[in-house]
Amino acid sequence: MSDAAHRVIGIDPGLAATGYGVVAGDARNAEVLTYGVIRTRSPRPRAERLHAIHEQVSELIAEHRPDELAIEEPYVAANVRSAFAIGEARAAAMIAAAAHGIEVFQYQSTAVKAAVAGHGGAPKEQVQAMVAMQLGLDTPPEPLDAADALALALTRLAEAALESRMAGRS
Amino acid sequence: MSDAAHRVIGIDPGLAATGYGVVAGDARNAEVLTYGVIRTRSPRPRAERLHAIHEQVSELIAEHRPDELAIEEPYVAANVRSAFAIGEARAAAMIAAAAHGIEVFQYQSTAVKAAVAGHGGAPKEQVQAMVAMQLGLDTPPEPLDAADALALALTRLAEAALESRMAGRS
Repeated sequence: MSDAAHRVIGIDPGLAATGYGVVAGDARNAEVLTYGVIRTRSPRPRAERLHAIHEQVSELIAEHRPDELAIEEPYVAANVRSAFAIGEARAAAMIAAAAHGIEVFQYQSTAVKAAVAGHGGAPKEQVQAMVAMQLGLDTPPEPLDAADALALALTRLAEAALESRMAGRS
Repeated sequence: MSDAAHRVIGIDPGLAATGYGVVAGDARNAEVLTYGVIRTRSPRPRAERLHAIHEQVSELIAEHRPDELAIEEPYVAANVRSAFAIGEARAAAMIAAAAHGIEVFQYQSTAVKAAVAGHGGAPKEQVQAMVAMQLGLDTPPEPLDAADALALALTRLAEAALESRMAGRS
């Protein structure tokens, strides 16, 4: 795969665990560059934890040079306390993206499931299995936060492929 | 007032308007160094708006060298959608503080009102008037977001003065 392939970093934001995954290619021929989880510990002050997420996402962007960042959109079903924490972790990742000048795409959880597993109500394990299949991985990516981040990145690749086909037709 | 005076930057976080205020001194003898509002416009992408808040808080810290940052604690009465936005703006400010190595203090809105205006149920206009009085300003600081930020900073100064008296007594 050439260096010019479309690269997307997916981020599943959370204060304690932020999943990440970088993929390259297109929806039908994608490969994984890296994936994992950024963990922060609760005895540390909140500002330090957010700073750690910000720094590590920034380092991932600097190292893997994605063209775009895909992140989960806030979902209104969450409670207010978790909404604050998720919003803060989302911000840490989005600020890193903006600082590097890369565009941010937001997807609702149901849109990611529909894009990767075919329907919006797919269980997490099915999404994980489909991510492994699409990326040619022998085992499902662990933990689930990382699998969700890869699913977000694949969703953006699929959307970009669709946009490109639409543009070619017009 | 000497350069060694305790300096605090107060932040009233919001995606569209983030109030800020820098004060120095102690609760009984405080002066204002600067205050105002960081505004971001809604047609711009969310990541850019958060990045702008992050950058401008970072510049305020670099210019005025506060010892600490005081920020409003998430309040559970907010709805989920506004909680995400406030959490994101909070994160932008806290990450800037952590990057500069300054400690972050969080206060509930009622604690700020109690510290500045004497009771937790004080209306915003009364808080604004008390902030003006304590800082020796001829007119109440405008807009309210900036007044709230100054009130947060004064709350930290008052707490620090109390801590210092407690430490002296023991």
